[in-house]
Amino acid sequence: MAAHDAVEVILAKRDNHELTDSQIDWVIDAYTRGEVADEQMSALAMAILLNGMNRTEIARWTAAMIASGERMDFSTLSRPTADKHSTGGVGDKITLPLAPLVAACGVAVPQLSGRGLGHTGGTLDKLESVPGWRAALSNEEMFAILEDVGAVICAAGDGLAPADKKLYALRDVTGTVEAIPLIASSIMSKKIAEGTGALVLDVKVGSGAFMKDLATARELAETMVALGTDAGVHTVALLTDMATPLGLTAGNAIEVAESVEVLAGGGPADVVELTLALAREMLAGAGRDDVDPADKLADGSAMDAWKAMIRAQGGDPDAALPEAKELHVVAAPASGTLTRLDAMAVGLAAWRLGAGRARKEDPVQAGAGVVWHARPGDEVTEGEPLFTLLTDEPERFDRALASLEGGYDIGDGAGFTRGEIVLDRIS
Amino acid sequence: MAAHDAVEVILAKRDNHELTDSQIDWVIDAYTRGEVADEQMSALAMAILLNGMNRTEIARWTAAMIASGERMDFSTLSRPTADKHSTGGVGDKITLPLAPLVAACGVAVPQLSGRGLGHTGGTLDKLESVPGWRAALSNEEMFAILEDVGAVICAAGDGLAPADKKLYALRDVTGTVEAIPLIASSIMSKKIAEGTGALVLDVKVGSGAFMKDLATARELAETMVALGTDAGVHTVALLTDMATPLGLTAGNAIEVAESVEVLAGGGPADVVELTLALAREMLAGAGRDDVDPADKLADGSAMDAWKAMIRAQGGDPDAALPEAKELHVVAAPASGTLTRLDAMAVGLAAWRLGAGRARKEDPVQAGAGVVWHARPGDEVTEGEPLFTLLTDEPERFDRALASLEGGYDIGDGAGFTRGEIVLDRIS
Repeated sequence: MAAHDAVEVILAKRDNHELTDSQIDWVIDAYTRGEVADEQMSALAMAILLNGMNRTEIARWTAAMIASGERMDFSTLSRPTADKHSTGGVGDKITLPLAPLVAACGVAVPQLSGRGLGHTGGTLDKLESVPGWRAALSNEEMFAILEDVGAVICAAGDGLAPADKKLYALRDVTGTVEAIPLIASSIMSKKIAEGTGALVLDVKVGSGAFMKDLATARELAETMVALGTDAGVHTVALLTDMATPLGLTAGNAIEVAESVEVLAGGGPADVVELTLALAREMLAGAGRDDVDPADKLADGSAMDAWKAMIRAQGGDPDAALPEAKELHVVAAPASGTLTRLDAMAVGLAAWRLGAGRARKEDPVQAGAGVVWHARPGDEVTEGEPLFTLLTDEPERFDRALASLEGGYDIGDGAGFTRGEIVLDRIS
Repeated sequence: MAAHDAVEVILAKRDNHELTDSQIDWVIDAYTRGEVADEQMSALAMAILLNGMNRTEIARWTAAMIASGERMDFSTLSRPTADKHSTGGVGDKITLPLAPLVAACGVAVPQLSGRGLGHTGGTLDKLESVPGWRAALSNEEMFAILEDVGAVICAAGDGLAPADKKLYALRDVTGTVEAIPLIASSIMSKKIAEGTGALVLDVKVGSGAFMKDLATARELAETMVALGTDAGVHTVALLTDMATPLGLTAGNAIEVAESVEVLAGGGPADVVELTLALAREMLAGAGRDDVDPADKLADGSAMDAWKAMIRAQGGDPDAALPEAKELHVVAAPASGTLTRLDAMAVGLAAWRLGAGRARKEDPVQAGAGVVWHARPGDEVTEGEPLFTLLTDEPERFDRALASLEGGYDIGDGAGFTRGEIVLDRIS
């Protein structure tokens, strides 16, 4: 590997030059080894955020992050593999019904997931509200569950893209998170290293999402689809609405309960619609578009896969879920049509109730969260429950209530139309 | 002081907002205390470099750096004070004759100086070639010498603008040196904290300088003059040429010898001209423009002040200066007029011969450097000496010779005019 030095690479990007393959390979490797210091990488990250990287640079940056660690290989499995990644939203429990549903259709789902930070929830936090369930698996356990059950949702091991792990922690404290090249390479390095055959990206757009507008979300989606495709992974992205929260719950145990409703053939219409849309993309990517996932919800086989998946990771799918110690009901202040429910307002309220964490080391409350009793377009009646707030610590209610203020509108409903969930598809 | 956090301040500058007084005060103080980490400050420095700061922000940033340490006060001296700062050039020994000259005119010169890094020399490195001379003085010693002799050239103590010391070291390794707001506040925080009454800035322009073009140099000069003026320091800047090196020598002992020639009433015309121009500005700034410094060169009083200044810091002004062990003469390849001599080429050659350092902890050679036997406009004769290269380590000659290649032109001199040294004046 050619020798470079950190200042040379920083100056190149600072002065708006294209980084060479050799510079990118060197800087990622040297940063992983600790030869490039954190203060040098953060200056480079800020220069990348402000000056950008082109497609060639992003592809090389991603490849270098993959090369910093191990790669997994699922080609010995008896089934094709498909994975899903969401950029994160409020009430986004879709992974929970989706993974067993796709497994029930004959495609293996090796779903490496994360924990929540800030107002968006984390899949592992949600599943940890199931008594006995554990997120940490060895590679051998993961393979065995994939072969037996067809779906596994677990924490990514330390061996996958360690450069990304180090860089992500640095970006979090240096104001360099919101750079499309760095977001795209962070997500895709892990997904490509994971070795999935097909990948569906759920890129959220709106107040409750990381990407607030459609143009930025589309740029991120296109960048990630190109990275996946170039790396030989069948990759598709759906741009989906996150102006409104998904379903009727945001929290941990309450989102598990809502997911189980979907697997039982019920559940909120938007959660069912998005789960099926993503499942169809995963099946198509894995070459199994002959199977209709709606049938697997109806015939109970998706529920069977869910129970098997939970049991395989030590959980009891039939145990009662934890409940919050305290609840507070917010009554509708007027009668009419709920014309707006803001995802960020709901997400912040759930976070402040204890469902999420402010710092990585904080615990989350299994029972905390927000239930809303109407979705935009539904009729509400003055004095009837509009929200139920749940927490173990009643002193949290005040700040949660403050987050909800101004977060919804009730009107006469004239001219109101419910928006689409899937806004666009990038392939 | 209001509480902020590092990411908030970084995001504000990253997203091109004006930093508030409170944010600036907090971030400088917290960085000095170690609460803001190096990786956070380097991301902020890169955002400042790429997005800039306005005059209000730069003034507050400078004030916060001054407030991070002690301030000196020369108001009890029996004489007014004036100081000079040069942004650094090749062969720039002007401080050496200038400080005693101005002292001989009745104005005290508290000259806090630095060491060289890269191709530009450092005043302290040059003076340390004088046997016995020492750069480190206590504040009490500095005051006593200023009162007795009128001029002192010494290292800045650790107490002055410690935030700048820490930030400067960080910028050096993170590609964030070349930001006008950070350069201006770094220089001016030290000069304002030093407590001089008048300040003349010698802002160098050209290949051998930090600022390569007049527009950038003017922007830096205007920024610094505004900072000084607002802080109550009588501040003037001269923009001076650094496309061509100053005088006939670049090194340490050889520049001291050339400075002594100037103090003896001789020396190269450009060194004399710039020394007198800067002396007149310093005297005017201190309210002593009734004195003509040329008289003090002619009557020997500047030389007396030099000798007293050297002796006061332990040096022997009459001792022989160190000489390099090896020399190599470069003959003129043709006869004609020297029409160009590039400051950067000469500076790199002197540096590679051992006159400068690559890293802060490296030693310098007292005797190393480059002597050129002609200045642009002078006639040269084929086969006669054009350069003399000096070093203790003859293995350094090859790389120094390579630096000089293409660094000069010899022609018929038709149409050649010698450029001005002082290009502009900002006040």
